[in-house]
Amino acid sequence: MSVPVYRADEGMWTFDNLPLKQWKERYNFEPTKEWIEKVQLASIRLNDGGSGGFVSPDGLLATNQHVAAGQLQKLSTKENDLTKNGFYAKTRAEELKAPDLEINILVSFENVTERVQSAVKAGATDQQASEQRKAVIAQIEKDSLDKTDLKSDVVSFYSGGEYWLYRNKKYTDIRLVFAPEEQIAFFGGDYDNFVFPRYDLDVTFLRAYENGQPAKTPNFFKWSETGPTDGEFVVAAGSPGSTARLLTVAQLAYQRDAGNPLQKQVWTSQLNALENYSKRGAEQARQAGSAMRSRSNGLKRLTGQQDGLTNPRMFDKKEAEEKALKDALAKMPDAQKIYAPAWEQTAAAYSELPKMSKRLAFSNLSPSRLGTIALQLVRYSEEIKKPNDRRYDEFRDSRLESFKFGLLSTATIYPELEEAVLTAWLEEAQKTLGGNDPFVKAAMGDAKVSEIVKRAVSETKLRDVAYRKSLLEGGADAIAKSTDPMIMLARRVEPIIRELRQWNEEKILSVDASAGEKISKARFAVYGKSIAPDANFNLRISYGKVKGYEEDTTLVPFKTTFFGLYDRANSFGEKPPFDLPARYKERRGSIDLSTPLNFVYSADTIGGNSGSPVINRNAELVGLNFDSNIQKLSNRYWYIEEDEGSRAVAVHSAGILEALRKVYDAADLAKELTGK
Amino acid sequence: MSVPVYRADEGMWTFDNLPLKQWKERYNFEPTKEWIEKVQLASIRLNDGGSGGFVSPDGLLATNQHVAAGQLQKLSTKENDLTKNGFYAKTRAEELKAPDLEINILVSFENVTERVQSAVKAGATDQQASEQRKAVIAQIEKDSLDKTDLKSDVVSFYSGGEYWLYRNKKYTDIRLVFAPEEQIAFFGGDYDNFVFPRYDLDVTFLRAYENGQPAKTPNFFKWSETGPTDGEFVVAAGSPGSTARLLTVAQLAYQRDAGNPLQKQVWTSQLNALENYSKRGAEQARQAGSAMRSRSNGLKRLTGQQDGLTNPRMFDKKEAEEKALKDALAKMPDAQKIYAPAWEQTAAAYSELPKMSKRLAFSNLSPSRLGTIALQLVRYSEEIKKPNDRRYDEFRDSRLESFKFGLLSTATIYPELEEAVLTAWLEEAQKTLGGNDPFVKAAMGDAKVSEIVKRAVSETKLRDVAYRKSLLEGGADAIAKSTDPMIMLARRVEPIIRELRQWNEEKILSVDASAGEKISKARFAVYGKSIAPDANFNLRISYGKVKGYEEDTTLVPFKTTFFGLYDRANSFGEKPPFDLPARYKERRGSIDLSTPLNFVYSADTIGGNSGSPVINRNAELVGLNFDSNIQKLSNRYWYIEEDEGSRAVAVHSAGILEALRKVYDAADLAKELTGK
Repeated sequence: MSVPVYRADEGMWTFDNLPLKQWKERYNFEPTKEWIEKVQLASIRLNDGGSGGFVSPDGLLATNQHVAAGQLQKLSTKENDLTKNGFYAKTRAEELKAPDLEINILVSFENVTERVQSAVKAGATDQQASEQRKAVIAQIEKDSLDKTDLKSDVVSFYSGGEYWLYRNKKYTDIRLVFAPEEQIAFFGGDYDNFVFPRYDLDVTFLRAYENGQPAKTPNFFKWSETGPTDGEFVVAAGSPGSTARLLTVAQLAYQRDAGNPLQKQVWTSQLNALENYSKRGAEQARQAGSAMRSRSNGLKRLTGQQDGLTNPRMFDKKEAEEKALKDALAKMPDAQKIYAPAWEQTAAAYSELPKMSKRLAFSNLSPSRLGTIALQLVRYSEEIKKPNDRRYDEFRDSRLESFKFGLLSTATIYPELEEAVLTAWLEEAQKTLGGNDPFVKAAMGDAKVSEIVKRAVSETKLRDVAYRKSLLEGGADAIAKSTDPMIMLARRVEPIIRELRQWNEEKILSVDASAGEKISKARFAVYGKSIAPDANFNLRISYGKVKGYEEDTTLVPFKTTFFGLYDRANSFGEKPPFDLPARYKERRGSIDLSTPLNFVYSADTIGGNSGSPVINRNAELVGLNFDSNIQKLSNRYWYIEEDEGSRAVAVHSAGILEALRKVYDAADLAKELTGK
Repeated sequence: MSVPVYRADEGMWTFDNLPLKQWKERYNFEPTKEWIEKVQLASIRLNDGGSGGFVSPDGLLATNQHVAAGQLQKLSTKENDLTKNGFYAKTRAEELKAPDLEINILVSFENVTERVQSAVKAGATDQQASEQRKAVIAQIEKDSLDKTDLKSDVVSFYSGGEYWLYRNKKYTDIRLVFAPEEQIAFFGGDYDNFVFPRYDLDVTFLRAYENGQPAKTPNFFKWSETGPTDGEFVVAAGSPGSTARLLTVAQLAYQRDAGNPLQKQVWTSQLNALENYSKRGAEQARQAGSAMRSRSNGLKRLTGQQDGLTNPRMFDKKEAEEKALKDALAKMPDAQKIYAPAWEQTAAAYSELPKMSKRLAFSNLSPSRLGTIALQLVRYSEEIKKPNDRRYDEFRDSRLESFKFGLLSTATIYPELEEAVLTAWLEEAQKTLGGNDPFVKAAMGDAKVSEIVKRAVSETKLRDVAYRKSLLEGGADAIAKSTDPMIMLARRVEPIIRELRQWNEEKILSVDASAGEKISKARFAVYGKSIAPDANFNLRISYGKVKGYEEDTTLVPFKTTFFGLYDRANSFGEKPPFDLPARYKERRGSIDLSTPLNFVYSADTIGGNSGSPVINRNAELVGLNFDSNIQKLSNRYWYIEEDEGSRAVAVHSAGILEALRKVYDAADLAKELTGK
């Protein structure tokens, strides 16, 4: 077995395969079993798309303000904008229940690779294999759910090289304890996003409740009053969303040439619609704020990723890596015979994708909450009739509770915003796909986009949760008979979307799974399980050290302080987005300005790691991950070495305490964190 | 006449050709005659290599600490290191006389192009032309000196396209009033050099004396208490040292391929010698400090310049520019016939240079002060015998006063330092040129470098100013008879140096002058006098606006504040070079931390502009230029546009006042500046 030299601090590791050897060799760190178990059980996935950690035995959890931003917006009104004003519940009675936030704790995991892979009969086509895998996965999930009552998902790793059953405890009663003003959580706005030095208090505290009481969470991270020291070993635990490091060159070339440019078009169009809407007034800007921030963030990240992918030097490296694996495989004739064809198979599949990719991207109603609800109801009514193991993944029994929790959210839906974004979306679809496209024709017929959308939004009753519930329970019959214009729109487009989904499953995803499994096995045969699998929004551990870096000709320090916040604000004459919330001006004299505010560290993280607790050897929380610097952006496709200046960015635990105590008069919260 | 589009804010302009049209069109600024005269007469060239400006009617002048660094070191002792500790003379009686600083004020200038160029006889070879020009220049200078008693230099502009007689008033009794600690003047050290945001109090106040009394300087810049506003039009007046924008492609290619790499070797070798010496102890580090800083600065700048020159895109641009000029010239057959051969002539000359360039670079004793003095004495004794118009430029009558002022400086010479740097230098020469090289053989004969140098440094009496004076006055006979081993070393190498200088004059410099004149005339014929001449350490005006810029994906503000100084210091845990002088910690509570400290502006400046007063429309001093950012480094070869982020960096006038008043208890000095 030849082992490639993997680079320092690489990898988002699963808990079944922690990098214990590296920790011992590089950092002289040997965690106890208790340490590992505690970290696993104190780490949280927030299903809005982020991470967090318990920080008290009473269900208190810390995450980023930007992870909680969607809920903050849903809790806001025209009269009290929590995004803008921040929030602090001085007593538990004042804590505000988030309308539709689910969090998950990974309780246990089990390797089911053998069971899944052996369910595929010899001689099965890719498509048959896909169905056979799906059936056994549905069965495994159902058995586990029945047995444990835990949310049970079979998750694919290493492009299908392994399958694991992940059991998560879920909480759906999550309440808001504290959030700072967005202006300080996101100081510097989109300009300073992915930039360091940085001065953001990107933190929010929530509390998990169970049966109307604060949840008992004996596994929690002790809050560090001092934070990390320069050079200190740290671990980030969280749920990185997605990486694409194990893709074949053919898959990467598709991303570079078609996938990413298309994604850019989609997000740009959505962002433009939101920006135009927000220009109508302050209230509209409030409604669109969280989505705009999310789209801007996505676009800036995508630009960095695509810059990496279009860099020939970087792409050459991926080609060389693939060639090295193929060459090594060539020395194992038996393995080669089985696995080698997978690359060609993938390349053939992906050569078909560009001609369908625009249809796949635009044939949906996703920017609209009402459109999404309508499609979910229509789709559910079809799927629920089928046996469990034949349904779309998201409608399997094991996932229905979470599905309904989201569908029946009480969060306010704003018709004016809905109309604006859905109109812009369908107009972009029409422009991109043409008037004769099946989706476009099904959606609009001969009418104008604006007419269709105006009617659907103004006349639908889907904003009423009780009405949604009645349709959910009414089944296929209720859906079929509904004259709700948004349901009717969804009914018209759903058959087209189904066809496209089927095409994608048959032509692409089933090949991804089959070929991916073969390439993974080839990689295991050559290198062993020496690298971490691609991220998939499940719990991972990353590690590294707190450390500054060189940039151009100078040094960037490992941390920033409150001094720097005031410097940057004053240097720009407090012009937005470099303005400070009022209380930062009033309280300036009370703050110890030398207190650290943000810091950087070398761990391998990506979007989804936002809110990850950054902990030291003693499992004390020293920071909350909230960003990466610009040098790290293309790490979706490859690990970027520490000495290239690639860094994760975190809020410093001491800075959070200083702000709670001196700016927000939140001594009780600080006491819950520290005991002081 | 076709006029190329020159870019906003380009040019270091002479006072005979100020960019009045651009000022009016772009900034609606029309200076009065009085404004222009005042700026000219209040601006100062410091012959140590920098700029400054009068800031009170009593001879007070402001420049950078790093411009005054050499004098600060010469005024320091082992017991009181002014570089480290700073200095403030509370009374005039306490002001310290700089041992060998001369400053010049440009009093008048006169176009002598016609007289110089017409002195060249028809049919003269380049070398004859060179001698004929030299003769007339010597005469012009002598006439002016006799008539005005002002320092009178004929200066070549536009590579010989124009000649001007510049008359300077000189002061040689310059006293130190105030200098901050180097640690705050150069906060961030070599790392932060050429970096912005920046936090350096790079200022020193000196006072010119005349006849033992503070000089009367009715032309001075009023100190601005508020400094510049964002977007404000500003002018920098100073003496930029050298640019190379009008070089031919052949000359640039020589710089890129041979000149710059050789310069890098020379400076690196010198820096290494100084660094090794400084490691011997604190006192040695003090002695070598100013030279080390100067070498580091030079190397960092050279690296940036060479990065620009080796960028093919940039070099292509220069080739395209040259081609455009040649193409335009081709449409003027008469002019073309005379001027066009100049490019070939230059290319031919520069093709000969690489084989001599190492000998030219290493055949000298320049890193050693004693070696330099010895060579100056030997050379003077030869030259002074010749008629005025046949001497080397630096020994012409008009320049002898300044020459003797420098030679007879009372500044301490440190033998241990001399021995270290001269040994390292001659060893590097030996390694580079080989043992059979004429200079190496003349210097060392069969002895070892270390023996030759040890004896020359330990036994020479040249440290004694009276001895130097006796040799100066003793003439050729005294030099010939001297058994001083440093003089003997100089006598041995001087004939070799003379041969090389003659080769360079004949083969390169005379061609530079003749061909340069032709190319300049071609450029005038095609474009008119629409661009500024290359910098040559004479008074120029640059202009632009105070303005931040974009870098990577974010914004860099136009200014920084004291907050940022404390942020950067604290972020690095005050590790050198990010540590603060003690009084900045003691006085932190008294300082208004929101006071601006540094700012950037878009004017076209280069090394030599250090200390330039940055003034507003009212000729008030709003800042002191002290650096450029890294985006601007290659502007030696071409102007870099404002929207590429190229900026000059200045100390803010309000920041200087705040430090004087709150940190240094220098209220009297602040009062002299502001009247308050």
